[in-house]
Amino acid sequence: MNLPELLKVARGEQPAEKVFVNGQVVNVLSGEVYSANVAVHAGLVVGLGDYQGWEVIDLQGRYLLPGLMDAHVHLESSLLDVPEFARAVVPHGTTAVIADPHELANVMGLAGVRYLLEAAEGLPLEVFVMVPSCVPASPFDDPGGTLTEEEIHTILQEEKVLGLAEMMNFPGAIGGDPEVLAKLEAAAGRPKDGHAPLVSGKELQAYLVAGPDSDHEATQLAEAQEKVRAGMYLFLREGSASHNLAALLPAVTPHNARRFCFACDDLQPADLLHAGHLDRILRKAVRLDLDPILAVQMATLNVAERFGLRRYGAIAPGYWADFALVENLNDFLVRQVYKRGQLVAENGEPRFEAPPPNNAHLRRTFHVAGLTLESFRLPWKGGNCRAIEVLPRQILTREVIVQPRTEGGYVVSDPTRDLLKAAVIERHRGTGLVGVGLVRGFGLKRGALASSVGHDSHNLTVVGVTDEDLWAAAQAVIEMNGGWAVVTWGEVVACLPLPIAGLMSDQPVGVVARQVGQLQEAAWTLGCTLPEPFMTLSFLSLAVIPELRLTPRGLVDVQKFALVEVGC
Amino acid sequence: MNLPELLKVARGEQPAEKVFVNGQVVNVLSGEVYSANVAVHAGLVVGLGDYQGWEVIDLQGRYLLPGLMDAHVHLESSLLDVPEFARAVVPHGTTAVIADPHELANVMGLAGVRYLLEAAEGLPLEVFVMVPSCVPASPFDDPGGTLTEEEIHTILQEEKVLGLAEMMNFPGAIGGDPEVLAKLEAAAGRPKDGHAPLVSGKELQAYLVAGPDSDHEATQLAEAQEKVRAGMYLFLREGSASHNLAALLPAVTPHNARRFCFACDDLQPADLLHAGHLDRILRKAVRLDLDPILAVQMATLNVAERFGLRRYGAIAPGYWADFALVENLNDFLVRQVYKRGQLVAENGEPRFEAPPPNNAHLRRTFHVAGLTLESFRLPWKGGNCRAIEVLPRQILTREVIVQPRTEGGYVVSDPTRDLLKAAVIERHRGTGLVGVGLVRGFGLKRGALASSVGHDSHNLTVVGVTDEDLWAAAQAVIEMNGGWAVVTWGEVVACLPLPIAGLMSDQPVGVVARQVGQLQEAAWTLGCTLPEPFMTLSFLSLAVIPELRLTPRGLVDVQKFALVEVGC
Repeated sequence: MNLPELLKVARGEQPAEKVFVNGQVVNVLSGEVYSANVAVHAGLVVGLGDYQGWEVIDLQGRYLLPGLMDAHVHLESSLLDVPEFARAVVPHGTTAVIADPHELANVMGLAGVRYLLEAAEGLPLEVFVMVPSCVPASPFDDPGGTLTEEEIHTILQEEKVLGLAEMMNFPGAIGGDPEVLAKLEAAAGRPKDGHAPLVSGKELQAYLVAGPDSDHEATQLAEAQEKVRAGMYLFLREGSASHNLAALLPAVTPHNARRFCFACDDLQPADLLHAGHLDRILRKAVRLDLDPILAVQMATLNVAERFGLRRYGAIAPGYWADFALVENLNDFLVRQVYKRGQLVAENGEPRFEAPPPNNAHLRRTFHVAGLTLESFRLPWKGGNCRAIEVLPRQILTREVIVQPRTEGGYVVSDPTRDLLKAAVIERHRGTGLVGVGLVRGFGLKRGALASSVGHDSHNLTVVGVTDEDLWAAAQAVIEMNGGWAVVTWGEVVACLPLPIAGLMSDQPVGVVARQVGQLQEAAWTLGCTLPEPFMTLSFLSLAVIPELRLTPRGLVDVQKFALVEVGC
Repeated sequence: MNLPELLKVARGEQPAEKVFVNGQVVNVLSGEVYSANVAVHAGLVVGLGDYQGWEVIDLQGRYLLPGLMDAHVHLESSLLDVPEFARAVVPHGTTAVIADPHELANVMGLAGVRYLLEAAEGLPLEVFVMVPSCVPASPFDDPGGTLTEEEIHTILQEEKVLGLAEMMNFPGAIGGDPEVLAKLEAAAGRPKDGHAPLVSGKELQAYLVAGPDSDHEATQLAEAQEKVRAGMYLFLREGSASHNLAALLPAVTPHNARRFCFACDDLQPADLLHAGHLDRILRKAVRLDLDPILAVQMATLNVAERFGLRRYGAIAPGYWADFALVENLNDFLVRQVYKRGQLVAENGEPRFEAPPPNNAHLRRTFHVAGLTLESFRLPWKGGNCRAIEVLPRQILTREVIVQPRTEGGYVVSDPTRDLLKAAVIERHRGTGLVGVGLVRGFGLKRGALASSVGHDSHNLTVVGVTDEDLWAAAQAVIEMNGGWAVVTWGEVVACLPLPIAGLMSDQPVGVVARQVGQLQEAAWTLGCTLPEPFMTLSFLSLAVIPELRLTPRGLVDVQKFALVEVGC
């Protein structure tokens, strides 16, 4: 930064590179909206007022907002690689996100976190990173990588790494688990995000004493109010899976609004494509009667303050020239986006090239040993069996006890009763571990679904009718080095390659959204009754949310926090 | 901090050390006031609600505020040593101050800054330090110590040192003076306080681009509004010398209130004793119609946020148990003060001992060489002379041209025309430098006043009628190793020893306030017409504020920024 030159421009003695004229500045610092010219030089705002510039940009009366900032998002949920994610969100006015690469870390450990940092370099979307705090997520998990407190401490030294991401092990934090406390201690003096669904009263206060001081899991108004009182920054979540804005917005008052931010948490490609990002949340918030200036503050300045990001979140001298230009403060239709003074999106289209990052080391993450038809066998030991019941659009599962259909001493699928075989195949280290069980709720009449997205360890998850189809679906994903597949009669009928860590595509959002649609169609054609079959599939192995889960080591009874047999 | 034990207490499994019951908690995070019990353990708030405690403290319905925080104060202005300052302000609810030891640094350099840190150790008043940015204040200054950018960088590594104090050299910052920019760069990424009286427009914006992003010098409403728009934190100043609250308070709105703090800047002992500290400002702000919750936020949370002080400024789990208990939110009468859960003041009285700090090295700062009666002679070279005209309660001086009274080729005082001789004696390094000139406005008919408080270098300043009295007054201050003295007929008639760096007493506030009163009385008895003779005296050498000043090197024409002769 050439400060003497910047000062010269600020003093008006030398023209600025650009002057934005005829715009309505939304000043989140003073809480005002007014007409002013904005001088930008070397990527920074140097002054508002009567400035000369080499280039004059007429904003035609549009509203100039600071670039929008997402307080908490898992980029991997978009299925997009980092550059394509940027090309998808920047046209919606987003110029920075606080990302938690929890999925990449589960596949790659520290290398996954580093990939996010490297892949974002040079993009007009700034990706700040919170270090995943819960890798592995449970003792039943077989992830590809882990993050110890030493590794957390190491990566925290990187410039764009801000703090510790959502501490999902809230019982551990509240209970004083030494490993959890060591991870929190590794991030001492830094922001530490929380994750405390329905945690309340003394447990909530103990959680705050332990360190995390934000939350994006509140779903109820009283819960949100209690959390703000207790000292949490509240991230109002409005993503693809969870829509908490309407319920929580009444907690915002002029006295406490600074403690609120917006966050998406997850963002599916179709939603990104058709609904937008933070622009959509601003629109909804204002329709729900939030004061537009408070709304813009919650998407900009408040995020910058919560994460200690100087020069971000406002339009004032010394701040980065990151702007979102909107038609008005009601529908927040984003017309242009500027990052450090450069036009980077216009009328919904990105105006930047994003060369593919170097991700060769993320493209060979599948190591599956000796998978055969026999791997999918489930011996019957007599009596009833436990089955996992999945529910539409819910992460929670139920344990049901069923009388299995058997053939030759083996448990087999019984589609007439919606009892299907499921398998979770360890895919990171070639351990040969395969957990096989029963699942109800998918509704498949034939064929199989397979996915390499499987929270939290992202092993290979398959559900289907025959062992042949289970095997073929798994094989299809292995051959793609990750992805989603739908198989029937041993043939792949639809697939979405996710070659980057088995989590992300290398295609643009439009392609990925279409492929996701085709995969869902294909699953429904096979009889699947779930609205989002692959999302449900991805949570089958989530060994930290009740009741029953399947991992490569077998079934996990989450409430008992123990492995259990299929037979009972 | 024993976190496992704190968690046990927060979870309610072990009684807290103390539970404060029957209080109205002012929750600055949620913007609410409500009845709640507050559990405190190991100096921290661990929870609000139904907690058990070894000790139960009945707050009798009083309002529990977070401990008050002053965003900018020069402790030295109180003339009190650090422990006595703490004993004076803590009973008013103050538990932390952001101090700028500009005066100590001018006398002692880095050792002066370190003294403030050391002397505050163990006190129930937390003293955070901003490193003085302008020592020396001008090229005409002869201070006892200086602070280079390397020294600034060094001291910034200390735990309680937060950033760079008010950059008074705003022309240097705006103009890009390399030395000023180097000092700002030394504090990169840290808070940098500004000082920009009436700076506006492009100059103001250049100042912000240079780095400082707060201001406590605004005196006019439009000025304050412009500064907040431009991105400055605004410290509303209400001290002993400047009363800006009433003029500036209309700039505060619910949308921007978080950008405002309160600051005293300077605090004279009598005001401290009789009027109070931040409690007085809260009272005045609410009488001026500020919402009481916004007012409390401005004295607590906003200060903590501006300076990045985690665990300060609110009452919530994980925050320090620093409380001010007040009768109501109108007059803010402080009944009790708790620091880290300990009662430290009650009904206006400190409840803590403050053993005198080790300050032997600050008690021998006078090094004056060869001062004799001859030192005060002012040879007349014929013609008229420049005289400094001082004005009651103003820092500004005027240059007046006068026909001097002379005797034997020397200019002498002429009290009939209120033309007195003044001298500023270098007192740090025994250089023998003495500047002698004429001053109008003191009104003394006989005798002399002397002071070792002389901004910014704190050389020895004397004003009086005869050379004998000038000499005797100077000698009295030298013998005290600093202080104020009033002399007539060669005899000391009143004195205030300020043995600590020549700036601070070692006596309690009550004694110092009384002594100050006696000194003023004595000056008035000699005919002095100024309401605050010693304050005016202390600004006689301030070579950065127009128009004419006297330094050990002679007269300075501030507008010409040059030394000038007395004769003209």
